[in-house]
Amino acid sequence: MRFLAQCFGAVFELIHLRFQHPQAKRGFSAAGQLVCAVRPTHSPTYVSSRKAATRSPPEQASFHTGHLNYHHCRRHPYHLCHQEAGLHDVQVTPCRCPLFSCQWEGHLEVVVPHLSQTHRVDILQGAEIVFLATDMHLPAPADWTMVHSCLGHHFLLVLRKQERHEGHPQFFATMLLIGTPTQADCFTYRLELSRNHRRLAWEATPRSVLEGVDAVITDGDCLVLNPSLAQLFSDNGRLAIAIAVAAAKVPPAEVAV
Amino acid sequence: MRFLAQCFGAVFELIHLRFQHPQAKRGFSAAGQLVCAVRPTHSPTYVSSRKAATRSPPEQASFHTGHLNYHHCRRHPYHLCHQEAGLHDVQVTPCRCPLFSCQWEGHLEVVVPHLSQTHRVDILQGAEIVFLATDMHLPAPADWTMVHSCLGHHFLLVLRKQERHEGHPQFFATMLLIGTPTQADCFTYRLELSRNHRRLAWEATPRSVLEGVDAVITDGDCLVLNPSLAQLFSDNGRLAIAIAVAAAKVPPAEVAV
Repeated sequence: MRFLAQCFGAVFELIHLRFQHPQAKRGFSAAGQLVCAVRPTHSPTYVSSRKAATRSPPEQASFHTGHLNYHHCRRHPYHLCHQEAGLHDVQVTPCRCPLFSCQWEGHLEVVVPHLSQTHRVDILQGAEIVFLATDMHLPAPADWTMVHSCLGHHFLLVLRKQERHEGHPQFFATMLLIGTPTQADCFTYRLELSRNHRRLAWEATPRSVLEGVDAVITDGDCLVLNPSLAQLFSDNGRLAIAIAVAAAKVPPAEVAV
Repeated sequence: MRFLAQCFGAVFELIHLRFQHPQAKRGFSAAGQLVCAVRPTHSPTYVSSRKAATRSPPEQASFHTGHLNYHHCRRHPYHLCHQEAGLHDVQVTPCRCPLFSCQWEGHLEVVVPHLSQTHRVDILQGAEIVFLATDMHLPAPADWTMVHSCLGHHFLLVLRKQERHEGHPQFFATMLLIGTPTQADCFTYRLELSRNHRRLAWEATPRSVLEGVDAVITDGDCLVLNPSLAQLFSDNGRLAIAIAVAAAKVPPAEVAV
């Protein structure tokens, strides 16, 4: 039911975008991309989520009764890089929740149901999709999150508004593989902003969710937007990020650096 | 003589880069791009330049005896968008020096000799070139500048290190047409950083030098790098930015926005 609502929402957003963003029409219509509208989540919500998590039984014991969206996950078992890396214990690898202020801890395999159930993170399938962050004007700290399911894996897209220096919020966008660092090296991802005859594109190897969003931001290994740049690419407080994931041609470990 | 030295420098840098940046080899060798190594200019230098400028006669009266590099400018009269826009008085359009803290004022046509003579800005010709900023670790404020000559026009590449918020330097890279805003709308430019399996690309319509670098930075209409992102793309304090300029397919004024 939620998946159907999500599809309707995506179609509605697509129609809306074609009227609201005439300059983006070609990009959206030609590619036939799915659009996922994402609202921000603030720290108060995370606090209540954390309380709920500490009160509920451990998620790793309950994920079999998970959210409807979880079937997206079950359709794509970790088999590609899993075999290459020879990692048979990914399911039981300890992992923290990658979202801001959430203290949840569980196993890697149950991160997706945790995100879906506790944080109501949407899961979208497709080679190329559009992540549409709404209410960009809301104050920091805030996270916009979505799970992108493709190539037999789940990737967590995080757009974070954070004041790394007091009074100066910035936006950080990155994609994390919900898998191990070895598995993450098998992929590349691309985030692209396009509006008003400007285009900003970021391509990188995804980091593992085991490393955490904070480490990625600290390393500068993400797309960084200051408020004026975010404003330039936003339309009425909404920022559209086109996302694409592909298999890496040559795994980084094999390239001389 | 200076041009020959510059060419030798570019070839040397290219050879150096092919050994220092094995991961960038394909990009540099396949495209056969010229590399221009650029050192930063700090505010004390600008202050002395300003003094020199106020003591010397107005530059607009002396540009015919200009620097050797100025012949690059004279080879390419403003004729493309010049005719389209019907602007016959570009030569006498008042213009300030686009660089940090320089108080020079003159006419648009003599900005290039001013930059070349007073600020020793290098001029490089070619469709695609590499701007190699050195000593990235030096404190703000600092400017790295170069003039890119192509398609019958001159484009000023500015990389500025600036503390827009005290204690938090950022890097801003943009390209300005040394011409009017109407002329600028006839082009697009692309800045690309690539290193360690990361790629960051910025495409935009250049702004006119008449608008000034400050306005471009304030509007966020440029490539913005925080120190960690700059560090990620730097090699031993040197940041390579691949630059390409092209004619705009459809001038922005003709597109419905």
